[in-house]
Amino acid sequence: MDPTDFETHPARYRHWKLTTAGETATLVMAVDAEHPHRPGYELKLNSYDLSVDLELADAIGRLRFEHPNVKVVVITAELDRVFCSGANIYMLGLSSHSFKVNFCKFTNETRLYLEDASANSGLASLCACKGTTAGGGYELALACDEAMLVDDGSSAVSFPETPLLAVLPGTGGLTRLVDKRKVRRDRADVFCTTAEGIKGKRAKDWGLVDHVVSRSKWDDVVAARAQALAAQQTVVRGPAVALPALAPRVTDQTITYLHVELSIDRAARTAALVVKGPDAPPPADLTSAELWSLRAFRELDDALLRLRFDHPDLGVVTVRTSGDPKLVVAHDEALARATTGFAREVRLLQRRVLRRFDNTARSFYAVADRLDTCFAGSLLELALGADRFYMRIDKAEQLGVTTSVANQGFLTMSSGLSRLDARFYGEPAHTQTLLSRGSEGPIGSEEAEQLGVATIAADDIDFADELRIAIEERASLSPDALTGMEQSLRFVGPETLETKIFGRLSAWQNWIFQRPNAVGEGGALKLYGTGKRAEFGEERV
Amino acid sequence: MDPTDFETHPARYRHWKLTTAGETATLVMAVDAEHPHRPGYELKLNSYDLSVDLELADAIGRLRFEHPNVKVVVITAELDRVFCSGANIYMLGLSSHSFKVNFCKFTNETRLYLEDASANSGLASLCACKGTTAGGGYELALACDEAMLVDDGSSAVSFPETPLLAVLPGTGGLTRLVDKRKVRRDRADVFCTTAEGIKGKRAKDWGLVDHVVSRSKWDDVVAARAQALAAQQTVVRGPAVALPALAPRVTDQTITYLHVELSIDRAARTAALVVKGPDAPPPADLTSAELWSLRAFRELDDALLRLRFDHPDLGVVTVRTSGDPKLVVAHDEALARATTGFAREVRLLQRRVLRRFDNTARSFYAVADRLDTCFAGSLLELALGADRFYMRIDKAEQLGVTTSVANQGFLTMSSGLSRLDARFYGEPAHTQTLLSRGSEGPIGSEEAEQLGVATIAADDIDFADELRIAIEERASLSPDALTGMEQSLRFVGPETLETKIFGRLSAWQNWIFQRPNAVGEGGALKLYGTGKRAEFGEERV
Repeated sequence: MDPTDFETHPARYRHWKLTTAGETATLVMAVDAEHPHRPGYELKLNSYDLSVDLELADAIGRLRFEHPNVKVVVITAELDRVFCSGANIYMLGLSSHSFKVNFCKFTNETRLYLEDASANSGLASLCACKGTTAGGGYELALACDEAMLVDDGSSAVSFPETPLLAVLPGTGGLTRLVDKRKVRRDRADVFCTTAEGIKGKRAKDWGLVDHVVSRSKWDDVVAARAQALAAQQTVVRGPAVALPALAPRVTDQTITYLHVELSIDRAARTAALVVKGPDAPPPADLTSAELWSLRAFRELDDALLRLRFDHPDLGVVTVRTSGDPKLVVAHDEALARATTGFAREVRLLQRRVLRRFDNTARSFYAVADRLDTCFAGSLLELALGADRFYMRIDKAEQLGVTTSVANQGFLTMSSGLSRLDARFYGEPAHTQTLLSRGSEGPIGSEEAEQLGVATIAADDIDFADELRIAIEERASLSPDALTGMEQSLRFVGPETLETKIFGRLSAWQNWIFQRPNAVGEGGALKLYGTGKRAEFGEERV
Repeated sequence: MDPTDFETHPARYRHWKLTTAGETATLVMAVDAEHPHRPGYELKLNSYDLSVDLELADAIGRLRFEHPNVKVVVITAELDRVFCSGANIYMLGLSSHSFKVNFCKFTNETRLYLEDASANSGLASLCACKGTTAGGGYELALACDEAMLVDDGSSAVSFPETPLLAVLPGTGGLTRLVDKRKVRRDRADVFCTTAEGIKGKRAKDWGLVDHVVSRSKWDDVVAARAQALAAQQTVVRGPAVALPALAPRVTDQTITYLHVELSIDRAARTAALVVKGPDAPPPADLTSAELWSLRAFRELDDALLRLRFDHPDLGVVTVRTSGDPKLVVAHDEALARATTGFAREVRLLQRRVLRRFDNTARSFYAVADRLDTCFAGSLLELALGADRFYMRIDKAEQLGVTTSVANQGFLTMSSGLSRLDARFYGEPAHTQTLLSRGSEGPIGSEEAEQLGVATIAADDIDFADELRIAIEERASLSPDALTGMEQSLRFVGPETLETKIFGRLSAWQNWIFQRPNAVGEGGALKLYGTGKRAEFGEERV
């Protein structure tokens, strides 16, 4: 299989058109039915697949960095009477379980990025649905700040997943319906089992959309609401920085970027991820796409996506860092001190990439065993986010970890806790102890173990064997059980809309995506479009 | 299949021995290997199945009501060197998916009842593990206030589920490990993948147990800790009330109790639940097992369990009430006013039963269509907990709902929200509006719809058809998709240990319980004990 390319550019979009005018960007969904992600299905009626969602993710990212003047993005479509009919059902029917789950995870992340841009970056969103808005189409609307539906007597919002396809809305829809939009639960029940959806006044009365607007007034009201949303924004972005292609070198064994390398050992079913620290102090003016803090984390993000989609068979990933810890700290501190909107965007991007790391269903073992290890500040978060952290004890105490301002709370997990607070959930004061100690200088391996940063510190004689055995053992366990276990242990403490979507809703969807009622020979997802009626087993589980 | 009998009595226990002495009760696990719930496996090494857990649930319930002087229960075993080896693996291997899931749900509820008794009823628990404590055995220990492990050089606590069986600990273990005991997540990772478990000092250092105690000091320390826990209790229970058998009349079509009846329509795949209100005002002295508030809710509890285990094919359940709303309100108010520990126990039992209702994976449609309907107070909670509430509009406005003190906040869902607060999550002030209106008298069907209590109110002409069609439609949908949908819509708002266990951990376990790596021909759960090694697919999902 060819590697998946997650990079694109508005000039190359096939499925969306991005334009900007003053404070408003318009993102028009115009899916090219003939160019799906993989052959075998057509993307009719503005239905989407990974190729469509990749472009949406790219557009949101570019608006944040490249178009700092834009304060609102209007998401709309140009088909007559259809906004978006959701994820393409034939694509889902043809996809492996693994692909379906990873596709939903990616689309969920993209929608959370819309919400993140609104909450933190002064970029509001308005979903202008001038036609049928079904399934994933409505989930996209739910992720926007406001949803507007045309009042033409026929256009409705709907979740036909349960009644027609025997699955759930897979992109946070159920959670957003009751937890974000606070639709009354019994009305949500009616809505989610009514295949044709709900339109007009009732859609507004029930809180499913914010506005219902006639065709004749549509353009004016869209423009007015966009302007109103733009006017509410107080966060200033910029200066503008264009995001160049990362263009990694991809072979069967390695994916190589400037600062990141992922090496694959297919026989052992493991991968080795190495993130290099910066090789120079931060420049006086940080505003550059080549800034290490931005470039390295963009590369890490891309590597994680390739790992998820193209290498489902690699269960254990070692995570190493290489470079000068002092330079990582210097970059973290320069970024924290900087008052530009650009610097804040970089910090927010780092946060999102680290959350993507947390939400990647592989066993991550962070390893500090080479003398150039640099688990410092923003890179230390990788060790704190890993399932285990192995440190070698060297007599000269050159190996260690270093804290920076980046560990002090900004880089929160989906739960809202910092990785240190999640780690020391049982002794909250310990985060401060650790940060105080860190402010005095590097923490050697033995002390890092005592302070609860390292899982295991072992001396020269034992280290290599201990690590090798731990990796082999991990690779021998059931991938499914590990996924469920890691999901339950990583996300300690409070739950948020985001953790509910990944931890609760996704788990139910994963379950349903396996059930004969959905994917069996007579299952609804399999038979969709054949004209045959699905046969359901009667058993409630 | 014979109906499952969920009622038992200490005199008939096969697997536990319950004794009390002063403030201490001792519950000795002594599983009779020859008497499993169903033929086909032996309950060796204090492994358990439904028949064992039924007795545990019975014992906890009786300690609360029948032994008010008991302030601590010591859970222990009399096997040499084994406390409990967890749920019986052969039983799991032989069971249907539906049974496995419902078995885990029941055992989860029982463990939550232990925690509820400690938090609210002055009944602490000490798990005294004088030997191997594996899987569900350790999960039982995690549900107790304190866990004590013998320090004999070999006895360990362990979660061998993931490394040996390719599944997860199914009774809240992962969640309690990091969220309740606050074990550091990377240590929890090591623990959960180490089949032989962790013993001695390390078990205590990592927070897996509270005490490690040598054999020679065992009895003294157990007694001392039990005494210390008892001394901390401030809540007073009593007076003692013995719980008589409910002994329903069970036929193929009906399960009939004094106040509750469940009627089964196998062809339509529906059931009709009717709960009758009290037929007389509350007595001056409430202290009686025959008190309506206690008896009716015990019956409802038993009916829900029978529905779950014996009738997996019934997807839609209508819920009706019958009686005089004023008498329900009178009972609720007498119970709220009463200052005895017994009255508090009854209120806590009502709360647990209503949570069992929330956690039952069936579509519940509450229906108020007969003139003797009595959705009042504690019974109104059934309508608020149902997925939908259908009310008929009668011209004389005899049909309505009534609020009482029982709706004011004590009967919280697992999330900690009252059912009214969950219903009006979008407009918190509305709970007060509704309660104020309720204090003025019954609320007719039309007004109940306007106030957001009824989902749909329809007049005489349309009502019967509308309800019939809604039930038929619901029964035609995929049972799995409905379960996932209802799970996501019912539990709006905050998450707690309890909702995490049911919503997050259970969903992942359900998923894993379906995967070939666990239950396929070469799956670990299937091959356990055969000497054959499981073969795992390599794909991470």
